[in-house]
Amino acid sequence: MPSPRRSVLFCLGLTLSLAVSTASAAAASLQEKVRSWRVAQESTLIDEYRAFVALPNVTIDRAGIQRNADFILAMMQRRGIDARLLTVATPNANPVVYGEVNVPGATRTLMLYAHFDGQPVNPAKWAPGWEPFNPKFATAPAEQGGKLIESWKSGDRVDPSWRLTGRGSADDKAGVMALLNAYAGLTAAGAKPSVNLKFLFDGEEEIGSPRLAELITQHRDRLRADLWVILDGPSHPSGRKTVGFGVRGDVNLHLTVFGAKRPLHSGNYGNWAPNPAWALVRLLATMKDDEGRVLIPGFYDDIAPLTPPEQRALAAIPSIEEPLRRELGLARTEKPGRTLFEGFTLPTLNINGIFSADVGPQAANIIPSIARATLDLRLVLGNDVQRQLGKVIAHIKAQGWHVLDRDPTDAERAEFPKLIRLDTKSAGNNAQRTPLEAPLPRAVAAAVQSTVDYPVVLMPTLGGTLPLIVIEQMLGTQLISVPIVNADNNQHAENENVQVQFLWDGIETYAAIMTSL
Amino acid sequence: MPSPRRSVLFCLGLTLSLAVSTASAAAASLQEKVRSWRVAQESTLIDEYRAFVALPNVTIDRAGIQRNADFILAMMQRRGIDARLLTVATPNANPVVYGEVNVPGATRTLMLYAHFDGQPVNPAKWAPGWEPFNPKFATAPAEQGGKLIESWKSGDRVDPSWRLTGRGSADDKAGVMALLNAYAGLTAAGAKPSVNLKFLFDGEEEIGSPRLAELITQHRDRLRADLWVILDGPSHPSGRKTVGFGVRGDVNLHLTVFGAKRPLHSGNYGNWAPNPAWALVRLLATMKDDEGRVLIPGFYDDIAPLTPPEQRALAAIPSIEEPLRRELGLARTEKPGRTLFEGFTLPTLNINGIFSADVGPQAANIIPSIARATLDLRLVLGNDVQRQLGKVIAHIKAQGWHVLDRDPTDAERAEFPKLIRLDTKSAGNNAQRTPLEAPLPRAVAAAVQSTVDYPVVLMPTLGGTLPLIVIEQMLGTQLISVPIVNADNNQHAENENVQVQFLWDGIETYAAIMTSL
Repeated sequence: MPSPRRSVLFCLGLTLSLAVSTASAAAASLQEKVRSWRVAQESTLIDEYRAFVALPNVTIDRAGIQRNADFILAMMQRRGIDARLLTVATPNANPVVYGEVNVPGATRTLMLYAHFDGQPVNPAKWAPGWEPFNPKFATAPAEQGGKLIESWKSGDRVDPSWRLTGRGSADDKAGVMALLNAYAGLTAAGAKPSVNLKFLFDGEEEIGSPRLAELITQHRDRLRADLWVILDGPSHPSGRKTVGFGVRGDVNLHLTVFGAKRPLHSGNYGNWAPNPAWALVRLLATMKDDEGRVLIPGFYDDIAPLTPPEQRALAAIPSIEEPLRRELGLARTEKPGRTLFEGFTLPTLNINGIFSADVGPQAANIIPSIARATLDLRLVLGNDVQRQLGKVIAHIKAQGWHVLDRDPTDAERAEFPKLIRLDTKSAGNNAQRTPLEAPLPRAVAAAVQSTVDYPVVLMPTLGGTLPLIVIEQMLGTQLISVPIVNADNNQHAENENVQVQFLWDGIETYAAIMTSL
Repeated sequence: MPSPRRSVLFCLGLTLSLAVSTASAAAASLQEKVRSWRVAQESTLIDEYRAFVALPNVTIDRAGIQRNADFILAMMQRRGIDARLLTVATPNANPVVYGEVNVPGATRTLMLYAHFDGQPVNPAKWAPGWEPFNPKFATAPAEQGGKLIESWKSGDRVDPSWRLTGRGSADDKAGVMALLNAYAGLTAAGAKPSVNLKFLFDGEEEIGSPRLAELITQHRDRLRADLWVILDGPSHPSGRKTVGFGVRGDVNLHLTVFGAKRPLHSGNYGNWAPNPAWALVRLLATMKDDEGRVLIPGFYDDIAPLTPPEQRALAAIPSIEEPLRRELGLARTEKPGRTLFEGFTLPTLNINGIFSADVGPQAANIIPSIARATLDLRLVLGNDVQRQLGKVIAHIKAQGWHVLDRDPTDAERAEFPKLIRLDTKSAGNNAQRTPLEAPLPRAVAAAVQSTVDYPVVLMPTLGGTLPLIVIEQMLGTQLISVPIVNADNNQHAENENVQVQFLWDGIETYAAIMTSL
């Protein structure tokens, strides 16, 4: 049986050289120094991070985003990083925080990317006492019976198994935290990076980084690097460190179905006035079967096949389906892929939410006037946002719907029995994938591997989305993802949390990356 | 062509006697006197009614209901009606307001029923400036471009085409208003009722009057009468005065579908974790087709056929489908009945509301953990609440669902792929229908007819629901409905309103009923 450290390289189809062993010994020593620094600084780092997570960061809250950007700038300045805000000409774009560390003698440049904006929050959905922007420690995720540690106060010891709660605690302020403290830890240890470093902290990632192309156009020289490393998303659910060679694309589609102009008494109009909620559920039901397969014609066409190294890496990903099914309380799972990770190599069609009138105690005996749903589509290599959306829209039309991009006029209401408004809230992003055999990405994977004695998980693609394709195409730069947070972080949902040990491990992971290329 | 007054009696299959003509002349004179009194009192009546509608009256708000009951008691006492609250032994039951007027020499007793509680409100859905419990005047319904008349102040003239806005303005505080002022108008005109009068104002009608049977058991003597006249629901949409000989039954069913125990990132779990919103829409889509026909086996079985007089009355109801379709902006309507009113003679299955996570700008890219819907079922004569619910539940089970009456345990989550919780919020009510040829109901219809010179609309059944079957069965009393409000009142929904002319006409209608039996 191969040793853990050889396993990962076996997956990459590489051979192990003696030089790697020597480098690993040096890496282990540096890792120890960075860890000692972190342990000594822990209380300060925790207080700073709590203050960071306490800043509201929903993407559309421009004032909140500005406060976050200013906070990051101050953190960078404290660590001796030359930092500034980058802006674009488009009005109302959120700022991006940029920083540079030039290392004398270094010939290569690494761009380190994370984002500090967060998904919308609905505080009413959070567990009692858990608040989006009032970070606290909990013994475990709320859904696993975690209790808030109400007695904790600044300066008290923090158990690394605890969770720090709050929107952005995991997605993706943890990334900012790990990157800045990896650099601070190296500096404190008297080490220096082996490459020039650039930092880019995005303020619009959660709406698809719509100004990224403009940012690259206007700041091309600053954003140039030999490799971009992306810090976002969760590690493998086993908790093993993970390197991702690609991401899925994503786009949202909002559906609004129109019934009568006003809500109607269900007795006085029942059996006569059409109910838009019935029409919407009938439409949605035609799109996906009970096993999770999308029924829209051509939905699974134009998928780029996996390369042999990708197929091998996919097969080597540790299985986590059974414990995950138990944790999530699922008797069965969908069928498009055989495993969770095989599912990542296929496009999705998902209902984010559906709404018409009220349910439960608030329900009234009415025929609603409107019904809405929001779908998201994840895309894989080979898919194109417009082409994939086009398949869904063509399917909707084929079911007899008249499609609008605005509310209907009276004339349209009178003419068309099935009226639907379709909106996309952002342009979306196509998927991106970096070849597993590319040299610099491979070196990053080896650096991550040098920090642990089990095989790092290599994923041909992560399940989530980042606008990496724009970077790849505009800058001609390769990209790789090295996520650091726990998989049960409730990213994008209520009760978001990060397990503290993952924050600490992330610092060491990135210290290794900064010194190993 | 028959004269309007003969038309209605033709529909009833009756013959016209000379005595009716003589009585009609007297009725017309009394109607004139009541109208003069109302015109003189208009400003006072409006102020009192606005104060009444301003009192929050959602059924579950016990304190609010009590304030409404006290307000009604005071109104009755001002009009010389012997009034009191009736209560039942069940804790937390809302009060019922009861009153009596004993007429020397009268041999028969009429019970006049209305309700003062209202459906739940969601102020955020009301048009700007329109508030559930701050009644204002508007030029028209909000959905028809109505503008609030902000400059109006107490004492100003009220145009009878205006709408008074607010929850309960039409459903059914208008009923309390019309009944008490009909009696006040008669008294002021020096007339007296031809029958003993009883008044019953229900405080729990909008949740199905769950304590009505207990009320009847505990106050049987007080509630006895020769006929109950129910004042609730809208007139025919043409605006013509309407007499209803029956009501549909109603029961709600709440559905909750369970996915993973927590919301999941749609990228990191997409194509693997089942989405309860998809499962719910697929289930609902099996229940009703695109033309509005319910597909649940046996759903249209056990419907009592219409009698020949009912068939004739149904055929004589003026068609309002075309203007109504235009007003509501509908290109087509459902098919179970050929007309709106034929649809009333069939049971319904309706989505009151559907909900999972968030839509539109609040949507997050998650797989929701739960999806909910509330259905209401209207029932017709021959249907039974439990039997009709049983058909729906059997259909759900036949689609492979494991049905619970509570949230699932971990063991159930692990065992059953399709888990659904079903709840009913009240016991529901069966339908009730009074024969069109019954003498006292027929006399009430003739009294209503005596106030107008067009044919009154006779409906074998209204579309809505009242717990009349309980009264009929427990007291052995016949019942009839004489609604008074405009059909475009947004009953049960946002922007509820009553057109002022309908309030005035309702007073005259009930003055005629009180003096014509």
